[in-house]
Amino acid sequence: MLIEHQDSPRYIRLHADDNVGVVVNDQGVAAGSRFADGLAAAEHIPQSHKVALADLAEGAEVVRYGQVIGYALQPIPRGSWVTEAHLRMPEPPALDSLPRATQAVAPVEPLEGFTFEGFRNPDGSVGTRNLLGVSTTVQCVAGVLEHCVERARKELLPKYPNVDDVIALSHSYGCGVAINAPDAVIPIRTLFNLARNPNLGGQALVIGLGCEKLQPVQLMPGDALTSGMSEPQWLYRLQESGNGFAGMVGQILGLIEARLEVLDARRRETCPASELVVGMQCGGSDAFSGITANPALGVTADLLVRAGATVMFSENTEVRDGIHLLTPRAATPEVADALIREMDWYDRYLARGMADRSANTTPGNKKGGLNNIVEKAMGSIAKSGSSPIAGVVPPGEKVRGKGLQFCATPASDFICGTLQLAAGMNLHVFTTGRGTPYGLAMVPVIKVATRSELAERWPDLIDVDAGRVTSGRLSLEELGGEIFRLYLDVASGRTRTWAERHRLHNDLVLFNPAPVT
Amino acid sequence: MLIEHQDSPRYIRLHADDNVGVVVNDQGVAAGSRFADGLAAAEHIPQSHKVALADLAEGAEVVRYGQVIGYALQPIPRGSWVTEAHLRMPEPPALDSLPRATQAVAPVEPLEGFTFEGFRNPDGSVGTRNLLGVSTTVQCVAGVLEHCVERARKELLPKYPNVDDVIALSHSYGCGVAINAPDAVIPIRTLFNLARNPNLGGQALVIGLGCEKLQPVQLMPGDALTSGMSEPQWLYRLQESGNGFAGMVGQILGLIEARLEVLDARRRETCPASELVVGMQCGGSDAFSGITANPALGVTADLLVRAGATVMFSENTEVRDGIHLLTPRAATPEVADALIREMDWYDRYLARGMADRSANTTPGNKKGGLNNIVEKAMGSIAKSGSSPIAGVVPPGEKVRGKGLQFCATPASDFICGTLQLAAGMNLHVFTTGRGTPYGLAMVPVIKVATRSELAERWPDLIDVDAGRVTSGRLSLEELGGEIFRLYLDVASGRTRTWAERHRLHNDLVLFNPAPVT
Ligand SMILES: [Ca+2]
Ligand SMILES: [Ca+2]
Ligand SMILES: [Ca+2]
Ligand SMILES: [Ca+2]
Ligand SMILES: [Ca+2]
Repeated sequence: MLIEHQDSPRYIRLHADDNVGVVVNDQGVAAGSRFADGLAAAEHIPQSHKVALADLAEGAEVVRYGQVIGYALQPIPRGSWVTEAHLRMPEPPALDSLPRATQAVAPVEPLEGFTFEGFRNPDGSVGTRNLLGVSTTVQCVAGVLEHCVERARKELLPKYPNVDDVIALSHSYGCGVAINAPDAVIPIRTLFNLARNPNLGGQALVIGLGCEKLQPVQLMPGDALTSGMSEPQWLYRLQESGNGFAGMVGQILGLIEARLEVLDARRRETCPASELVVGMQCGGSDAFSGITANPALGVTADLLVRAGATVMFSENTEVRDGIHLLTPRAATPEVADALIREMDWYDRYLARGMADRSANTTPGNKKGGLNNIVEKAMGSIAKSGSSPIAGVVPPGEKVRGKGLQFCATPASDFICGTLQLAAGMNLHVFTTGRGTPYGLAMVPVIKVATRSELAERWPDLIDVDAGRVTSGRLSLEELGGEIFRLYLDVASGRTRTWAERHRLHNDLVLFNPAPVT
Repeated sequence: MLIEHQDSPRYIRLHADDNVGVVVNDQGVAAGSRFADGLAAAEHIPQSHKVALADLAEGAEVVRYGQVIGYALQPIPRGSWVTEAHLRMPEPPALDSLPRATQAVAPVEPLEGFTFEGFRNPDGSVGTRNLLGVSTTVQCVAGVLEHCVERARKELLPKYPNVDDVIALSHSYGCGVAINAPDAVIPIRTLFNLARNPNLGGQALVIGLGCEKLQPVQLMPGDALTSGMSEPQWLYRLQESGNGFAGMVGQILGLIEARLEVLDARRRETCPASELVVGMQCGGSDAFSGITANPALGVTADLLVRAGATVMFSENTEVRDGIHLLTPRAATPEVADALIREMDWYDRYLARGMADRSANTTPGNKKGGLNNIVEKAMGSIAKSGSSPIAGVVPPGEKVRGKGLQFCATPASDFICGTLQLAAGMNLHVFTTGRGTPYGLAMVPVIKVATRSELAERWPDLIDVDAGRVTSGRLSLEELGGEIFRLYLDVASGRTRTWAERHRLHNDLVLFNPAPVT
């Protein structure tokens, strides 16, 4: 499919210092084509790949986003296609001498009066959906629970129309793992906090086996979630079944129905936009991610911060090479220290497995014009907008406080999503350049395409077309405002995302840096 | 429920050198009760826990299975309950001075004439079920594929009655991982070999996204599985969809139906028992695992070896403390070296994460009378019977050759099961003392309870009651023979296991010792 500017070769230069531009045209540009400024393409350059805007000597800095993304390994003449083979990747910024909380913060005008219709929880948090989530201590129970959840959806859910769904919080942790290894704290607290996601309505229900290492008390340690309930009301261990499979199924369906009754009595109420906890992520990125979709999320992040909401960016290996741009934005030196601590921990985690942050980039990224992790990182952190970084959430912990938060996670789409759910995300936004049908059971996922070609080819998967920015139909600010309003509509249940409509539910994936046994 | 011997206190002593016995009675024995030999219980001792058969001085060796399972931390009077608190755990055997292939092998009589009805594959292997397995390169595709598989089961499968099921080989690997890290070879070759499990009929079908790190060619490298097929016949990348979700679903259902047509033409044929590839595992073990169910599997393992079949035992951390009993049984010094190599690799893997093999034991094991990993290991390796160890299968690799094989895996139930599937298992047997509803989609799982109490309480989950051995109703040899015949019945599809009847399908879990990104 051709779009309007097909015939006039175009590139985008993002920063005045950049000596490369990104080709916009869907089919790329042919050798000899002239851009509006007279630059001639020396060869065919595919869409989203880079053209040299100046003659670059061997060893010269190659600059995009105003940042050095590589050094020329050979002379690169003006008009050439700049590929991975032409670049030596820079080292990541050293972590011991970074500026900490040095950037002056311009006062911003609060954004008031924006609301959504949400489900207020006993702990004060707000759900955007009314789900019954059944926690599990161990994978052993997954088969039985899946059977029960399927039956509950068919046989029970129709009787409780105010409940959106019944979901199993299945995972592969809980036994066969070194549960006392130092790093085991991460998967354990992740499971603890997943059970407390705002979309689960503060209803405790745990299915265990009985002999596993992860004990139910580690998920429900006698706190508010189980107060007023006796253990048999919130916990069932399969090994207690006096009547095999039939006994288990009967008991679990009974527990599910009791929780459904409670959840069904809930109603949406008007809540300020400050109750949103938006998790931002990118996956299947291309060179447009950093031009269209991610900067548009940056605009929405700034709007959310002004509205008093919580908004999280993540993906350690996509932040590592831009860390020198982020520590100055930390609200306090302590927040900067926390950012540095997470980067340092992850450097060592990767080194232990004989890898480094460059293992992040995928063949698809490269096909999409991203030459290396430095270039990818610059595009990824555009999601963070321009607000001060108010806090850092270690992996598996719950976010505390409002504003822009760095939730430290691997970039792996499902691990990042799972950790953002544990952090308390009630709305997820996911940008993609190459395309992915990503979806989660626990929150609505809004998918934003970086290019119109993808949005138009996948009309029943992509919720927002950010490619309208490159075609000049929309400014980044207009697009950001549109997505912000969509957040409120989706949060209110007025709009259902494509992933929700098709019930595209990728499994939770825990981050377990400790060994299995 | 009381069983016949309830009123007469009984313990089992497995080896003439043992100075502890295991209490058999369902409700344990009360303080003061007298066993048949006149020993009086000094206190209440629960079922499957140990009673001291002699006065044990501080520092004395505590011996079970003829092996030291601990040293007395304090004097333990005759008749006392021997608990974890009384024992110091021995160090694991050093790996540098083990006897290698030293044990004389008594000639055994071949077992001839046993057959089963199986599905012969193009590569010569034999399936016990006729399944369509859809491989995936990355978790991104799981939601869409799950939707397609569900529809295929409802809409297509009834038209192809000779096909048992359509299953998705979903997993959390493929992207967001350090795919070039040295240890990444393990998950990658696991996925490669899973697609070649004998129960999948040698039919290649891969669903990918398009931009992931794991490339389809790593699963289907132009070998026999895809010969005669063009790439579009065995591979579909979601990013190729010209019509979004609807387009993907249509394409995938078309590919599934084409493969179903091929599979539906297959018929079972009579195959020698030597085509069985039995994977043995234990989970939720108790002190009876090493007395009833596991030694019974040892008997079946010896029968399978005599019949020329392949039988695998696994679970590194449950073998480590008994390695000095296994290296002498290696068929050759090279096999002994391979055993030692796998133990050494796993020691270092655990140490890297600040754990050791003692992280294996669970609260349930301990409640079930297993004081530490040494005692657990002695019971676990009883599954290996008495045959020479003919080979060692590194994690994720395919078994080569017949006879008794050590398939090196974590003890984690689902990781072990997944690796045994990759090794080529066409029948799975799983012993349990505490009880688990374990099931896999790719092979029938026969579950064997160590105690009659469990078997009788879970009549619709447990396939075999090994507790009949302790009640004296059956000898280990009789039970082993019964299970051997059940292997042939289940393999032939004449008997369906409880896990199959309820469709209890635990997810595949890959062993990925490398970092995620
Ligand atoms: Ca990303
Ligand atoms: Ca990601
Ligand atoms: Ca085991
Ligand atoms: Ca196991
Ligand atoms: Ca699943």
